[in-house]
Order: sequence, then C-alpha cells, then structure tokens
Amino acid sequence: MATIKDIASRLGIAVSTVSKGLNGASDISDDMRQLVLDTAVEMGYASKKLRAKSTRKVCILIENMDYENIDQFGYEIIMGFKLSAARRHWEVEVIPSDLNMQTAEKFDTYMLKNGFCGAFLLGFSLHDDWVKQLHKTTVPTVLLDNYIPVNQHVGYVGTDSMEGISLAVKHLYSLGHRKIAFLNGSKNSMVSDERYQAFIQSMTDCGLKPDDKLIEYGYYVPDCAKYHVPTFLENGATAILCASDLIASGVIAEIVKHHRCVPEDISVIGFDDLPLAAQLTPPLTTVRQDRTDLGKSAFLLLDGLVHNVTVSKMLLRAKFIERASTAPAKKIKNTASRSKSQNSK
Amino acid sequence: MATIKDIASRLGIAVSTVSKGLNGASDISDDMRQLVLDTAVEMGYASKKLRAKSTRKVCILIENMDYENIDQFGYEIIMGFKLSAARRHWEVEVIPSDLNMQTAEKFDTYMLKNGFCGAFLLGFSLHDDWVKQLHKTTVPTVLLDNYIPVNQHVGYVGTDSMEGISLAVKHLYSLGHRKIAFLNGSKNSMVSDERYQAFIQSMTDCGLKPDDKLIEYGYYVPDCAKYHVPTFLENGATAILCASDLIASGVIAEIVKHHRCVPEDISVIGFDDLPLAAQLTPPLTTVRQDRTDLGKSAFLLLDGLVHNVTVSKMLLRAKFIERASTAPAKKIKNTASRSKSQNSK
Repeated sequence: MATIKDIASRLGIAVSTVSKGLNGASDISDDMRQLVLDTAVEMGYASKKLRAKSTRKVCILIENMDYENIDQFGYEIIMGFKLSAARRHWEVEVIPSDLNMQTAEKFDTYMLKNGFCGAFLLGFSLHDDWVKQLHKTTVPTVLLDNYIPVNQHVGYVGTDSMEGISLAVKHLYSLGHRKIAFLNGSKNSMVSDERYQAFIQSMTDCGLKPDDKLIEYGYYVPDCAKYHVPTFLENGATAILCASDLIASGVIAEIVKHHRCVPEDISVIGFDDLPLAAQLTPPLTTVRQDRTDLGKSAFLLLDGLVHNVTVSKMLLRAKFIERASTAPAKKIKNTASRSKSQNSK
Repeated sequence: MATIKDIASRLGIAVSTVSKGLNGASDISDDMRQLVLDTAVEMGYASKKLRAKSTRKVCILIENMDYENIDQFGYEIIMGFKLSAARRHWEVEVIPSDLNMQTAEKFDTYMLKNGFCGAFLLGFSLHDDWVKQLHKTTVPTVLLDNYIPVNQHVGYVGTDSMEGISLAVKHLYSLGHRKIAFLNGSKNSMVSDERYQAFIQSMTDCGLKPDDKLIEYGYYVPDCAKYHVPTFLENGATAILCASDLIASGVIAEIVKHHRCVPEDISVIGFDDLPLAAQLTPPLTTVRQDRTDLGKSAFLLLDGLVHNVTVSKMLLRAKFIERASTAPAKKIKNTASRSKSQNSK
C-alpha cells in the first residue's frame, strides 16, 4: 500500500505538501490538492485515519430514489443502515448525488477527500460513471440491486427476485390466471434483467408460455402504466404483475379508466410493499421487500468488506403479501385463454 | 408462538410435567419427555431461555467433510465461525453428525432438546432427512452450499461458483485451450449443479462448445480421477478443470500414469486452494474459496436469522490463484481441436 512518502517521491514534492493536500489544508493551491488526491487514489493510498477503527465514517450516496419520508422506498433502507451503523459507532452521512458530482471527480477521489472509508450506493444505474469506476475501486462499496463482477471491494445487496416473482406467478396461476402480463421497471438495470428472467422461469415452471406482447419495461412511476395497460388489455391479460407498488397504483387507475374492475376483471400485483400498498383501493397484493433489513444487511456487508471479508452478494427473502387486488380469473376468459395456450403449444 | 401452557393443554397434562420434559428432568419417563418435545416442536415452541441473549448456544453439525486439521476443507470454516461467535460471546458446539442421529429424531426436536438456538450445517446433502425437514423448520439454520427455498429461517452461504469457474475457463482459453474437460463433484448437490451451469455458461461465453464426453461427475476424493481421466484423454482434452484440489491431485497422478506431463501436455486446475494445492507437483493453479471468510459469513448470516433479518443467500468472491499446473496448449493439439470445433459448429 502506498504511503505519503511514495506519493511525495512520485510527484517530486515535499512530504509536508502531500500531507497538506490529503488533509485539506488551505495554504496549498486547489490544483496541487487535486493532483495530490488523484495521485494518492491512483497509487492505492488509504490513510491511517481512514483505516483506524475509532473514526470510521461512511456515506450513503443516493440518486433517483425518494427517501425523505416513511412512505418512500429509500427511507427504511437508510434507517436500517443507520441503526446498524450506530450500534457499531460508525458515522453515516446521507448524500444526494447527481451527474455533476460524478463528472467533477472520480469516485475514489471523492471518498478520500471526504474521509469516507466506505459507501452504500442507492438508486444508481450501471450507466453511471461512478458505478463504472467501481470495477477498479479499492474503496469498500455496497450497491443496492446492482452487481460488479470480480472486484473484491464491492458487494451487492438485494431481495431475491426469483423467489418473489415466482410466489406472485404461482399465486395467479392457482387463481386460474393463464394470460399474465408483466410490467417491469426500467431497462438497463440488473434488477430488471433478473426479474425478467424470473418471470420467464416462473411462467415456464407453471407450464405457461410467456407472451412477448404481455411483457413491457416502464419506469418506477405510476404514470408509465398508461403506455402499456391498453396493450395488455387488448391482448387478453387477466392479471398484471408490476415491478413496484407505484407502478401497480398507476396500473389500477388505468384499468379503472378502461371501465374494468380490479380484481373482478383484472388482478394486479405490486412489488415492494410500501405503506401505500395497503391504502390503495383495493388494497394491493404485493411482494414485500423488507427495506429495514436491506439497510441492515448492507451495513453487515460493508462491515465485512472493510474487514476484507469478500462477500459479493447478499440476498434477502421476498415475502408474498396477499390483499384484495387479486381474485380468481373470470371463467370465460380463463377458458378462452386456456384453449389459446393449448393451440400455441 | 406456543407457550408451555398451550403444550400442557394440548397433551392434557400438568404444566409442571411439560416443564420437566423440556428441561430434561429425570423424574419423568423417556417416552413422556419425547412426547413433550415432539409436541413442543410441532407447536413451534421456543423457550425464553433459548431466545434470551445471554445464553446463546449454537451448533455446527458436520457430515461427510474432514475438518480435524488445517489441511482439511472444514477446519478453517469452523475456525472462522468460532472466531466471530466468540466475539459475540456465543457458545459453539461442533457435532459430527450421521444418519443414525437423523433417524433417531427430528432436526427441530434435536435442537430444542439440546438447547441450541441455531445451527450451521456443513457437508450435508439435499437427500439428508434433516435437510428435507429444513423446509419447515423454525430454527435459524445456515447451510453451506445448499439452498432451501421460501423458508425465512434458513439461509445459504457459499462461494460464487459462476465467477470462480468463469475465471478458470477464461484463463485456460487465454492459454489457447479449446478442448476443456470438467470433472465435477458429486451429483445431487446444489453446488455441483451450479458449477455445471457455470461451466457451460463460461465455455459458451468464450465461444466454445461444451462437449458431453468431457464433462463428468465424481466425488471429492483423488481416487475418482481414474474413472474419468482416461476418457478425457481419449477425447482430446488439453485441460481438465476439477471441482476440488483433492480431485485435481488424483487427476495429476492419473495423467502421469498415462505418461503425459502436467502442464506441458495437459493443464489442470483445482478448486478450494487447500494448503495441499501449493505443495503438489507441479504446484496447483486453483480457484480459492476463503474458508475462514465462509465461516465468518455463516456466523453473520446466522446472527441475522436469529434476529429475524431474513437473508437467504450470502455469496463470497472466488479468487483465481495461478501456479504451475497450467501452461499454453500444445500447438498441434490446439490446431486440431480448433478445426474440430469449427466443424462442429
């Protein structure tokens, strides 16, 4: 591991100047400071202070995710993480991130500059610069719902989509549904890929043939429902599985607009079990992600990475929550779809 | 959750008798004690004592796995688990298990009777009675290398086979090997299934067609090599990937018996990185499973389950260790296999 001396000799400057750069002293230029930091990062420098047990400080970087009140997806994740961190006397800073921050400097430089010995990233996508840089980071980092191969300093925490989607599809199948539509989250995300695979696998396990016209990608907002629900209905869907409760709320509203009833005509299932799920009309059947446990697990994982326990994946159980938005498939539709599915074999 | 009173009323006996049964008092018959324990388990009873923080006692049940000295696979796993447990003042008993124990009584009964609030199972297979019972257990339990769906009280810890096998296959591919054989571990185990899938996927990712004649299942002992290595050689393999270092040691011996050299004629890769790997002739290129970290992670997972954090899977990074048992594929063989693989497309 590089020392302050190594950095000084690489740059041909005094050790005291390097030290000033690393510690944010005001009597060197911004350019020199940046040069010292960039070189330190490049050489894999980690200060004793960051490694010392007594002063551990980590950050939660958050992007594209609401977290400010308890109804929002990120809230309990952050609470769970903070709870576990507090028990170990780690300091946690929650930092909303944006593209500008990512353009301004490298992830490792940002972490070093701000004295963070680890990070938990929420809501980032694989396209983000900082996420791309994680392939080579030496900073212990945990990602929610995204996975970086090979790098031992990075881990992934999430809910087991395979099990969650499978429970939902089996439930619909047991109610007689055969034409099941899936409105997924946004493309280019690992969790959407996984849920797509899980949906295909679960349908196949039930002996059903997934229908391309009944599978679409949206965004994690209610509004995306209007672009896809009409097509699903035209193509004979009797049930719609959604990648989030927010999407499901939009789907229910859209179904009602089309003068159909939930669950009498169309069954709807969400994902997450946000507080809003139980308050919808009808109360939403959904797949629960325990967000407090996600936060706690993220902390456990980060704690492991900081201590060189190279966990790469930590998956939580999904829990199926049955409420009132699912019901037996209508008899007629059911027979029609059955004969169709038999024809298509 | 059932109480002592519930059990007494179900059995129509005094609360004091139930209490005696649960606490192993000597003044009730063995039959009555067994009845009380079985009923308690059936009703989901968990004593306050077991749930209390101060007296946590867990067991490591171990079967079909050597663990008594540092050269053996189980040793460091148990050490890692014990280290983490000691830091939290949990008591750990290591118990060699066998079929008789499993026939004698149910898993949950055994745990309750012996005052264990959790278990870590090593070396068990999906066919074991106790593993089958895990689908319905309420005892927090962690399995190495095996997975139980849906039950929130059970978790799985292991090394990421996909990544490990992929690193090995890519390494062989980069050395010019095209006819790569895979000698897997025993059938009917989740980890063998996963490694099989990983091998097929990794070959496909490299643009190679997996050849059924070059894929076999063995056992985790050197001796199994003699049944498969001759077939691999006859079918033109230039490299053999093995599911454990022990298997690889047998494979090297068998290759030498056939008057071929490792790595000049045939490259060999192991899995695990046991201490023996570096001592073989030639020193073995292998995929490292960090066994101490597996033990530590198993404890973290069990700790989570005891506190109702329902982690289902925890995977560790595999690390590729290059030593001297792999070398560039022989030019002639390489060309031959290339033209063959082109023909087979």
